Amino acid sequence: MRYAARVAYMGTAYSGWQRQAMGTGVQEKIEESLAALEGKPVTVTAAGRTDAGVHARGQVISFELGKEWRPDKLVLALNFRLPPDVSVLETARVVQEFDARRSALWREYRYFIWHGNALPPFLHGRVWWNRFQWDFCHVRRACALFEGDHDFRAFCKTAECPDRTVRTMYRASVRRKGCLAVFTVRGNAFLTNMVRIMAGNLNAVGRGKKSVEWMEDLLQGRARADSAMTAPAEGLYLWKVGYGEGTPFGPYRVE
Amino acid sequence: MRYAARVAYMGTAYSGWQRQAMGTGVQEKIEESLAALEGKPVTVTAAGRTDAGVHARGQVISFELGKEWRPDKLVLALNFRLPPDVSVLETARVVQEFDARRSALWREYRYFIWHGNALPPFLHGRVWWNRFQWDFCHVRRACALFEGDHDFRAFCKTAECPDRTVRTMYRASVRRKGCLAVFTVRGNAFLTNMVRIMAGNLNAVGRGKKSVEWMEDLLQGRARADSAMTAPAEGLYLWKVGYGEGTPFGPYRVE
Repeated sequence: MRYAARVAYMGTAYSGWQRQAMGTGVQEKIEESLAALEGKPVTVTAAGRTDAGVHARGQVISFELGKEWRPDKLVLALNFRLPPDVSVLETARVVQEFDARRSALWREYRYFIWHGNALPPFLHGRVWWNRFQWDFCHVRRACALFEGDHDFRAFCKTAECPDRTVRTMYRASVRRKGCLAVFTVRGNAFLTNMVRIMAGNLNAVGRGKKSVEWMEDLLQGRARADSAMTAPAEGLYLWKVGYGEGTPFGPYRVE
Repeated sequence: MRYAARVAYMGTAYSGWQRQAMGTGVQEKIEESLAALEGKPVTVTAAGRTDAGVHARGQVISFELGKEWRPDKLVLALNFRLPPDVSVLETARVVQEFDARRSALWREYRYFIWHGNALPPFLHGRVWWNRFQWDFCHVRRACALFEGDHDFRAFCKTAECPDRTVRTMYRASVRRKGCLAVFTVRGNAFLTNMVRIMAGNLNAVGRGKKSVEWMEDLLQGRARADSAMTAPAEGLYLWKVGYGEGTPFGPYRVE
Protein backbone atom coordinates (compact mmCIF):
# COMPACT_ATOMS: atom_id res chain seq x y z
CA MET A 1 0.00 0.00 0.00
CA ARG A 2 1.20 3.45 -0.86
CA TYR A 3 1.52 6.26 1.71
CA ALA A 4 2.44 9.90 1.79
CA ALA A 5 3.71 11.76 4.85
CA ARG A 6 4.41 15.37 5.71
CA VAL A 7 7.66 15.69 7.63
CA ALA A 8 9.26 18.54 9.58
CA TYR A 9 12.86 18.70 10.76
CA MET A 10 15.50 20.95 12.21
CA GLY A 11 18.34 20.47 9.76
CA THR A 12 21.08 21.68 12.14
CA ALA A 13 22.42 18.23 13.06
CA TYR A 14 22.08 16.65 9.62
CA SER A 15 24.16 16.52 6.47
CA GLY A 16 20.95 17.23 4.51
CA TRP A 17 18.00 15.16 3.35
CA GLN A 18 20.02 12.52 1.53
CA ARG A 19 22.43 9.94 2.85
CA GLN A 20 25.99 11.24 2.58
CA ALA A 21 29.43 9.66 2.80
CA MET A 22 30.01 11.79 5.91
CA GLY A 23 27.28 12.60 8.43
CA THR A 24 23.67 11.50 8.71
CA GLY A 25 20.85 12.35 6.32
CA VAL A 26 17.30 12.91 7.58
CA GLN A 27 16.21 10.27 5.06
CA GLU A 28 18.18 7.62 7.00
CA LYS A 29 16.33 8.38 10.24
CA ILE A 30 12.96 8.04 8.54
CA GLU A 31 13.89 4.91 6.62
CA GLU A 32 15.15 3.32 9.85
CA SER A 33 11.87 4.08 11.58
CA LEU A 34 9.88 2.64 8.66
CA ALA A 35 12.12 -0.44 8.49
CA ALA A 36 11.41 -1.11 12.18
CA LEU A 37 7.67 -1.17 11.40
CA GLU A 38 8.01 -3.28 8.26
CA GLY A 39 10.71 -5.67 9.42
CA LYS A 40 12.57 -5.02 6.15
CA PRO A 41 14.17 -2.04 4.38
CA VAL A 42 11.83 0.68 3.08
CA THR A 43 12.93 3.38 0.63
CA VAL A 44 11.32 6.81 0.68
CA THR A 45 11.13 9.44 -2.06
CA ALA A 46 11.09 13.11 -1.02
CA ALA A 47 9.68 16.17 -2.77
CA GLY A 48 12.81 18.24 -2.17
CA ARG A 49 16.41 17.43 -1.34
CA THR A 50 17.41 19.92 1.29
CA ASP A 51 21.12 20.75 1.82
CA ALA A 52 23.08 20.29 5.04
CA GLY A 53 21.64 22.42 7.85
CA VAL A 54 18.47 23.40 5.98
CA HIS A 55 15.17 22.96 7.84
CA ALA A 56 11.81 21.65 6.65
CA ARG A 57 8.33 22.44 7.82
CA GLY A 58 6.49 20.71 4.98
CA GLN A 59 8.71 18.11 3.32
CA VAL A 60 6.58 15.43 1.66
CA ILE A 61 7.64 11.81 1.21
CA SER A 62 6.11 8.73 -0.40
CA PHE A 63 6.74 5.08 0.47
CA GLU A 64 5.22 1.56 0.39
CA LEU A 65 4.09 -0.46 3.38
CA GLY A 66 2.76 -4.04 3.37
CA LYS A 67 0.15 -3.40 6.02
CA GLU A 68 -2.82 -1.06 6.27
CA TRP A 69 -2.29 1.65 8.92
CA ARG A 70 -4.69 4.15 10.41
CA PRO A 71 -3.12 7.53 9.53
CA ASP A 72 -2.86 8.80 13.14
CA LYS A 73 -1.47 5.47 14.41
CA LEU A 74 1.18 5.55 11.69
CA VAL A 75 2.21 9.06 12.83
CA LEU A 76 2.65 7.83 16.42
CA ALA A 77 4.48 4.63 15.42
CA LEU A 78 6.95 6.52 13.21
CA ASN A 79 7.62 9.31 15.68
CA PHE A 80 8.19 6.79 18.46
CA ARG A 81 11.44 5.85 16.72
CA LEU A 82 12.43 9.31 15.48
CA PRO A 83 14.68 11.79 17.32
CA PRO A 84 13.01 15.03 18.56
CA ASP A 85 14.49 17.06 15.69
CA VAL A 86 12.57 15.02 13.07
CA SER A 87 8.77 14.61 13.18
CA VAL A 88 6.16 13.07 10.96
CA LEU A 89 3.24 15.50 11.22
CA GLU A 90 0.66 13.77 9.03
CA THR A 91 0.27 10.64 6.92
CA ALA A 92 -2.32 9.44 4.41
CA ARG A 93 -2.97 6.54 2.06
CA VAL A 94 -2.42 7.74 -1.51
CA VAL A 95 -3.06 6.28 -4.95
CA GLN A 96 -0.38 4.03 -6.41
CA GLU A 97 0.69 6.68 -8.97
CA PHE A 98 1.66 9.19 -6.27
CA ASP A 99 5.36 10.03 -6.19
CA ALA A 100 6.34 12.75 -3.72
CA ARG A 101 8.92 14.12 -6.14
CA ARG A 102 7.39 13.67 -9.57
CA SER A 103 3.78 14.46 -8.61
CA ALA A 104 4.74 17.81 -7.04
CA LEU A 105 3.47 20.87 -8.93
CA TRP A 106 5.50 23.35 -6.92
CA ARG A 107 7.79 23.75 -3.91
CA GLU A 108 7.70 26.76 -1.63
CA TYR A 109 10.75 27.80 0.37
CA ARG A 110 10.96 30.50 3.02
CA TYR A 111 14.13 32.21 4.11
CA PHE A 112 14.15 34.06 7.47
CA ILE A 113 16.46 37.01 8.10
CA TRP A 114 16.85 38.71 11.49
CA HIS A 115 18.03 42.33 11.35
CA GLY A 116 18.09 43.15 15.08
CA ASN A 117 20.99 44.42 17.13
CA ALA A 118 20.65 41.31 19.33
CA LEU A 119 19.46 37.80 18.44
CA PRO A 120 16.69 36.45 20.72
CA PRO A 121 17.87 33.03 21.93
CA PHE A 122 14.71 31.38 20.57
CA LEU A 123 15.84 32.19 17.02
CA HIS A 124 19.38 30.86 17.36
CA GLY A 125 20.12 28.44 14.48
CA ARG A 126 16.73 29.20 12.88
CA VAL A 127 17.36 32.50 11.04
CA TRP A 128 20.16 34.30 9.26
CA TRP A 129 21.30 36.97 11.70
CA ASN A 130 22.19 39.73 9.28
CA ARG A 131 23.65 42.80 10.95
CA PHE A 132 23.20 45.08 7.95
CA GLN A 133 20.12 47.21 7.49
CA TRP A 134 18.39 46.67 4.16
CA ASP A 135 16.76 49.13 1.84
CA PHE A 136 13.50 47.19 1.54
CA CYS A 137 12.28 49.26 -1.36
CA HIS A 138 15.22 48.02 -3.48
CA VAL A 139 14.99 44.48 -2.08
CA ARG A 140 11.32 44.21 -3.05
CA ARG A 141 11.95 45.46 -6.56
CA ALA A 142 14.83 43.00 -7.01
CA CYS A 143 12.77 40.15 -5.54
CA ALA A 144 9.86 40.76 -7.92
CA LEU A 145 12.26 40.07 -10.81
CA PHE A 146 12.47 36.38 -9.77
CA GLU A 147 8.87 35.76 -10.84
CA GLY A 148 8.37 34.06 -14.21
CA ASP A 149 10.71 31.91 -16.36
CA HIS A 150 14.41 32.73 -16.04
CA ASP A 151 17.77 31.16 -16.63
CA PHE A 152 18.99 30.78 -13.04
CA ARG A 153 22.55 29.68 -13.94
CA ALA A 154 24.00 32.40 -11.69
CA PHE A 155 21.90 30.94 -8.82
CA CYS A 156 23.33 27.41 -8.84
CA LYS A 157 26.28 25.88 -7.03
CA THR A 158 28.87 25.52 -9.84
CA ALA A 159 29.83 21.90 -9.07
CA GLU A 160 26.20 20.78 -9.28
CA CYS A 161 24.97 22.82 -12.23
CA PRO A 162 22.85 20.86 -14.73
CA ASP A 163 22.65 21.63 -18.46
CA ARG A 164 19.18 23.11 -18.28
CA THR A 165 19.01 25.96 -15.77
CA VAL A 166 15.68 27.57 -16.70
CA ARG A 167 13.13 27.37 -13.87
CA THR A 168 9.71 28.94 -13.33
CA MET A 169 8.98 30.95 -10.20
CA TYR A 170 5.26 31.42 -9.54
CA ARG A 171 5.70 33.80 -6.63
CA ALA A 172 8.49 35.70 -4.90
CA SER A 173 8.03 38.21 -2.11
CA VAL A 174 9.72 39.76 0.92
CA ARG A 175 7.64 40.59 3.98
CA ARG A 176 8.88 42.41 7.02
CA LYS A 177 7.67 42.38 10.61
CA GLY A 178 9.81 44.33 13.05
CA CYS A 179 13.36 42.98 12.83
CA LEU A 180 12.33 39.87 10.91
CA ALA A 181 12.26 39.68 7.11
CA VAL A 182 10.78 36.66 5.33
CA PHE A 183 11.66 35.88 1.73
CA THR A 184 9.11 33.49 0.19
CA VAL A 185 9.60 31.86 -3.19
CA ARG A 186 7.46 29.27 -4.94
CA GLY A 187 8.59 27.57 -8.12
CA ASN A 188 8.27 24.44 -10.24
CA ALA A 189 11.78 23.26 -9.29
CA PHE A 190 15.01 24.59 -7.79
CA LEU A 191 18.73 24.29 -8.50
CA THR A 192 21.29 23.41 -5.80
CA ASN A 193 21.67 26.33 -3.35
CA MET A 194 19.27 28.39 -5.47
CA VAL A 195 17.19 29.93 -2.68
CA ARG A 196 20.29 30.66 -0.58
CA ILE A 197 21.98 32.39 -3.53
CA MET A 198 18.75 34.34 -4.16
CA ALA A 199 18.85 35.48 -0.48
CA GLY A 200 22.55 36.33 -0.78
CA ASN A 201 21.87 38.42 -3.89
CA LEU A 202 18.93 40.19 -2.21
CA ASN A 203 21.33 41.02 0.62
CA ALA A 204 23.79 42.57 -1.86
CA VAL A 205 20.98 44.75 -3.22
CA GLY A 206 19.57 45.54 0.23
CA ARG A 207 22.96 46.73 1.50
CA GLY A 208 23.37 48.92 -1.58
CA LYS A 209 26.41 47.00 -2.88
CA LYS A 210 24.53 46.01 -6.02
CA SER A 211 21.68 47.55 -7.99
CA VAL A 212 18.29 46.23 -9.03
CA GLU A 213 19.59 46.37 -12.64
CA TRP A 214 22.46 44.07 -11.65
CA MET A 215 19.89 41.48 -10.48
CA GLU A 216 18.02 41.88 -13.76
CA ASP A 217 21.25 41.16 -15.62
CA LEU A 218 22.05 38.12 -13.44
CA LEU A 219 18.73 36.60 -14.47
CA GLN A 220 19.82 36.61 -18.12
CA GLY A 221 21.85 33.43 -17.51
CA ARG A 222 25.03 34.92 -16.04
CA ALA A 223 27.62 32.67 -14.37
CA ARG A 224 27.67 31.76 -10.64
CA ALA A 225 30.80 33.91 -10.23
CA ASP A 226 28.73 37.00 -11.03
CA SER A 227 26.40 36.35 -8.05
CA ALA A 228 26.99 37.38 -4.45
CA MET A 229 27.62 34.97 -1.54
CA THR A 230 25.40 31.99 -0.68
CA ALA A 231 23.31 32.88 2.40
CA PRO A 232 23.69 30.47 5.37
CA ALA A 233 21.64 27.25 5.51
CA GLU A 234 20.16 28.00 8.96
CA GLY A 235 17.67 30.59 7.65
CA LEU A 236 16.12 28.29 5.01
CA TYR A 237 12.95 26.17 5.30
CA LEU A 238 11.28 23.87 2.79
CA TRP A 239 7.88 25.29 3.69
CA LYS A 240 5.26 23.61 1.56
CA VAL A 241 4.86 21.33 -1.45
CA GLY A 242 1.86 21.58 -3.76
CA TYR A 243 0.06 18.65 -5.37
CA GLY A 244 -3.08 20.48 -6.43
CA GLU A 245 -6.50 21.20 -4.85
CA GLY A 246 -6.27 21.78 -1.07
CA THR A 247 -2.70 20.34 -0.98
CA PRO A 248 -0.71 18.59 0.75
CA PHE A 249 -1.29 15.23 -1.00
CA GLY A 250 -4.20 16.92 -2.84
CA PRO A 251 -6.27 14.68 -5.13
CA TYR A 252 -3.88 11.74 -4.58
CA ARG A 253 -5.24 11.10 -1.09
CA VAL A 254 -7.31 7.90 -0.59
CA GLU A 255 -10.03 8.44 2.00
CA MET B 1 25.53 54.78 36.85
CA ARG B 2 22.39 52.71 36.96
CA TYR B 3 21.18 50.54 34.07
CA ALA B 4 18.24 48.33 33.24
CA ALA B 5 18.27 45.53 30.68
CA ARG B 6 15.68 43.30 29.10
CA VAL B 7 16.94 39.74 28.88
CA ALA B 8 15.68 36.63 27.06
CA TYR B 9 16.85 33.09 27.66
CA MET B 10 16.09 29.46 26.93
CA GLY B 11 15.99 27.98 30.42
CA THR B 12 16.61 24.38 29.28
CA ALA B 13 20.29 24.22 30.23
CA TYR B 14 20.03 26.24 33.45
CA SER B 15 19.14 25.51 37.05
CA GLY B 16 16.97 28.65 36.98
CA TRP B 17 17.62 32.36 37.28
CA GLN B 18 19.50 32.19 40.56
CA ARG B 19 22.84 30.66 41.40
CA GLN B 20 22.34 27.15 42.79
CA ALA B 21 24.52 24.70 44.67
CA MET B 22 24.19 22.39 41.64
CA GLY B 23 24.10 23.62 38.07
CA THR B 24 24.42 27.08 36.57
CA GLY B 25 22.00 29.98 37.01
CA VAL B 26 21.35 32.45 34.19
CA GLN B 27 22.27 35.22 36.66
CA GLU B 28 25.86 33.90 36.79
CA LYS B 29 26.27 34.14 33.03
CA ILE B 30 25.11 37.73 32.99
CA GLU B 31 27.15 38.75 36.02
CA GLU B 32 30.25 37.20 34.44
CA SER B 33 29.68 39.19 31.27
CA LEU B 34 29.19 42.41 33.26
CA ALA B 35 32.26 41.70 35.40
CA ALA B 36 34.37 41.36 32.25
CA LEU B 37 33.28 44.88 31.21
CA GLU B 38 33.76 46.41 34.65
CA GLY B 39 36.92 44.59 35.69
CA LYS B 40 35.28 43.79 39.03
CA PRO B 41 32.22 41.84 40.27
CA VAL B 42 28.79 43.25 39.41
CA THR B 43 25.56 42.07 41.07
CA VAL B 44 22.26 42.16 39.19
CA THR B 45 18.70 42.23 40.53
CA ALA B 46 15.98 40.55 38.46
CA ALA B 47 12.23 41.18 38.29
CA GLY B 48 11.37 37.48 38.52
CA ARG B 49 13.20 34.39 39.74
CA THR B 50 12.44 31.74 37.18
CA ASP B 51 12.73 28.05 38.15
CA ALA B 52 15.01 25.49 36.52
CA GLY B 53 14.12 25.00 32.85
CA VAL B 54 11.76 28.00 32.66
CA HIS B 55 12.29 30.42 29.75
CA ALA B 56 12.19 34.20 29.65
CA ARG B 57 11.32 36.54 26.83
CA GLY B 58 11.15 39.73 28.92
CA GLN B 59 13.11 39.29 32.15
CA VAL B 60 14.24 42.70 33.44
CA ILE B 61 17.40 43.30 35.47
CA SER B 62 19.02 46.32 37.12
CA PHE B 63 22.72 46.89 37.86
CA GLU B 64 25.41 49.54 38.37
CA LEU B 65 28.31 50.32 36.02
CA GLY B 66 31.09 52.81 36.59
CA LYS B 67 31.19 53.98 32.99
CA GLU B 68 28.65 55.57 30.68
CA TRP B 69 27.63 53.26 27.84
CA ARG B 70 25.63 53.90 24.70
CA PRO B 71 22.62 51.53 25.06
CA ASP B 72 23.21 49.68 21.77
CA LYS B 73 26.96 49.30 22.42
CA LEU B 74 26.22 47.85 25.85
CA VAL B 75 23.90 45.27 24.24
CA LEU B 76 26.69 44.19 21.86
CA ALA B 77 29.39 44.13 24.56
CA LEU B 78 27.27 42.00 26.90
CA ASN B 79 26.10 39.56 24.23
CA PHE B 80 29.66 39.12 23.00
CA ARG B 81 30.38 37.23 26.25
CA LEU B 82 27.02 35.47 26.60
CA PRO B 83 26.17 31.98 25.28
CA PRO B 84 23.57 31.80 22.45
CA ASP B 85 20.81 30.68 24.85
CA VAL B 86 21.00 33.95 26.81
CA SER B 87 20.61 37.37 25.14
CA VAL B 88 20.41 40.95 26.30
CA LEU B 89 17.80 42.46 23.96
CA GLU B 90 17.78 46.07 25.18
CA THR B 91 19.46 48.28 27.76
CA ALA B 92 18.85 51.80 29.06
CA ARG B 93 20.16 54.22 31.66
CA VAL B 94 17.62 54.45 34.48
CA VAL B 95 17.20 56.68 37.52
CA GLN B 96 19.05 55.67 40.68
CA GLU B 97 15.82 54.58 42.42
CA PHE B 98 15.04 51.92 39.81
CA ASP B 99 15.12 48.37 41.16
CA ALA B 100 14.06 45.67 38.68
CA ARG B 101 12.29 43.71 41.41
CA ARG B 102 10.83 46.33 43.72
CA SER B 103 9.85 48.85 41.03
CA ALA B 104 7.85 46.24 39.07
CA LEU B 105 4.07 46.79 39.06
CA TRP B 106 3.26 43.44 37.49
CA ARG B 107 4.74 40.34 35.92
CA GLU B 108 3.16 38.54 32.98
CA TYR B 109 3.79 34.86 32.38
CA ARG B 110 2.70 32.79 29.40
CA TYR B 111 2.37 29.04 29.38
CA PHE B 112 2.30 27.23 26.00
CA ILE B 113 0.51 23.90 25.56
CA TRP B 114 0.65 21.82 22.38
CA HIS B 115 -2.29 19.48 21.85
CA GLY B 116 -1.33 17.91 18.52
CA ASN B 117 -0.88 14.24 17.72
CA ALA B 118 2.74 14.98 16.75
CA LEU B 119 5.13 17.63 18.09
CA PRO B 120 6.74 19.79 15.37
CA PRO B 121 10.52 19.67 16.01
CA PHE B 122 10.67 23.47 16.22
CA LEU B 123 8.60 23.34 19.43
CA HIS B 124 10.65 20.67 21.20
CA GLY B 125 11.59 21.89 24.71
CA ARG B 126 9.51 25.06 24.26
CA VAL B 127 5.94 23.88 24.99
CA TRP B 128 4.15 21.34 27.16
CA TRP B 129 3.18 18.56 24.79
CA ASN B 130 -0.12 17.52 26.30
CA ARG B 131 -1.72 14.53 24.59
CA PHE B 132 -5.17 15.04 26.13
CA GLN B 133 -7.84 17.08 24.42
CA TRP B 134 -9.25 19.87 26.57
CA ASP B 135 -12.77 21.11 26.95
CA PHE B 136 -11.91 24.77 26.36
CA CYS B 137 -15.28 25.96 27.54
CA HIS B 138 -14.56 24.59 31.03
CA VAL B 139 -10.91 25.67 30.91
CA ARG B 140 -11.87 29.27 30.14
CA ARG B 141 -14.42 29.39 32.94
CA ALA B 142 -11.88 27.97 35.43
CA CYS B 143 -9.18 30.36 34.20
CA ALA B 144 -11.39 33.42 34.66
CA LEU B 145 -11.59 32.55 38.37
CA PHE B 146 -7.89 33.43 38.79
CA GLU B 147 -8.58 37.13 38.25
CA GLY B 148 -8.72 39.29 41.38
CA ASP B 149 -7.35 38.78 44.91
CA HIS B 150 -7.16 35.17 46.07
CA ASP B 151 -5.35 33.04 48.59
CA PHE B 152 -3.12 30.97 46.28
CA ARG B 153 -1.83 28.59 48.99
CA ALA B 154 -2.88 25.57 46.90
CA PHE B 155 -0.77 27.00 44.04
CA CYS B 156 2.58 27.12 45.86
CA LYS B 157 5.36 24.54 46.19
CA THR B 158 4.95 23.36 49.80
CA ALA B 159 8.61 23.65 50.78
CA GLU B 160 8.74 27.28 49.68
CA CYS B 161 5.39 28.54 50.89
CA PRO B 162 5.51 31.93 52.65
CA ASP B 163 3.09 33.01 55.40
CA ARG B 164 1.17 35.41 53.20
CA THR B 165 -0.18 33.66 50.12
CA VAL B 166 -2.70 36.23 48.86
CA ARG B 167 -1.78 37.59 45.43
CA THR B 168 -3.62 39.79 42.91
CA MET B 169 -4.09 38.64 39.33
CA TYR B 170 -4.96 41.47 36.94
CA ARG B 171 -5.61 39.24 33.95
CA ALA B 172 -5.92 35.56 33.16
CA SER B 173 -6.93 34.08 29.82
CA VAL B 174 -6.54 31.05 27.58
CA ARG B 175 -6.28 31.55 23.84
CA ARG B 176 -6.23 28.80 21.27
CA LYS B 177 -4.84 28.69 17.76
CA GLY B 178 -4.99 25.30 16.07
CA CYS B 179 -3.18 22.78 18.30
CA LEU B 180 -1.56 25.49 20.43
CA ALA B 181 -3.14 26.86 23.62
CA VAL B 182 -1.63 29.85 25.40
CA PHE B 183 -2.41 30.56 29.04
CA THR B 184 -1.55 34.18 29.93
CA VAL B 185 -1.57 35.47 33.49
CA ARG B 186 -0.57 38.87 34.80
CA GLY B 187 -0.30 39.58 38.53
CA ASN B 188 1.40 41.71 41.16
CA ALA B 189 3.58 38.82 42.35
CA PHE B 190 3.78 35.02 42.12
CA LEU B 191 4.50 32.15 44.50
CA THR B 192 7.02 29.40 43.71
CA ASN B 193 5.67 27.16 40.91
CA MET B 194 2.43 29.15 40.91
CA VAL B 195 1.91 29.46 37.13
CA ARG B 196 2.89 25.83 36.57
CA ILE B 197 0.39 24.66 39.22
CA MET B 198 -2.25 26.92 37.63
CA ALA B 199 -1.54 25.22 34.28
CA GLY B 200 -1.65 21.79 35.93
CA ASN B 201 -5.01 22.59 37.49
CA LEU B 202 -6.40 23.92 34.21
CA ASN B 203 -5.34 20.61 32.67
CA ALA B 204 -7.31 18.70 35.35
CA VAL B 205 -10.40 20.75 34.49
CA GLY B 206 -9.79 20.56 30.73
CA ARG B 207 -9.56 16.76 30.82
CA GLY B 208 -12.75 16.57 32.85
CA LYS B 209 -11.05 15.10 35.93
CA LYS B 210 -12.01 18.12 38.02
CA SER B 211 -14.84 20.63 37.86
CA VAL B 212 -14.89 24.41 37.62
CA GLU B 213 -16.37 24.41 41.14
CA TRP B 214 -13.32 22.46 42.37
CA MET B 215 -11.09 25.28 41.08
CA GLU B 216 -13.31 27.82 42.82
CA ASP B 217 -12.86 25.90 46.07
CA LEU B 218 -9.05 25.66 45.62
CA LEU B 219 -8.88 29.46 45.46
CA GLN B 220 -10.33 29.69 48.99
CA GLY B 221 -6.88 28.94 50.42
CA ARG B 222 -6.85 25.13 50.15
CA ALA B 223 -3.58 23.20 50.66
CA ARG B 224 -1.10 22.28 47.90
CA ALA B 225 -2.11 18.64 48.27
CA ASP B 226 -5.61 19.52 47.00
CA SER B 227 -4.17 20.81 43.70
CA ALA B 228 -3.29 18.74 40.64
CA MET B 229 0.26 18.15 39.29
CA THR B 230 2.74 20.92 38.54
CA ALA B 231 2.94 21.39 34.75
CA PRO B 232 6.45 21.02 33.25
CA ALA B 233 8.88 23.95 33.24
CA GLU B 234 9.48 23.82 29.47
CA GLY B 235 6.13 25.43 28.58
CA LEU B 236 6.60 28.49 30.81
CA TYR B 237 7.91 31.94 29.82
CA LEU B 238 8.41 35.08 31.90
CA TRP B 239 6.88 37.20 29.15
CA LYS B 240 6.82 40.81 30.26
CA VAL B 241 7.35 42.99 33.32
CA GLY B 242 5.47 46.25 33.80
CA TYR B 243 6.91 49.45 35.28
CA GLY B 244 4.17 51.82 34.14
CA GLU B 245 3.54 54.00 31.07
CA GLY B 246 4.76 52.36 27.85
CA THR B 247 6.84 49.78 29.85
CA PRO B 248 9.57 48.16 29.90
CA PHE B 249 11.59 50.50 32.14
CA GLY B 250 8.66 52.97 31.82
CA PRO B 251 9.14 56.33 33.52
CA TYR B 252 12.45 55.20 35.08
CA ARG B 253 14.30 55.51 31.76
CA VAL B 254 16.87 58.32 31.46
CA GLU B 255 16.96 59.63 27.89
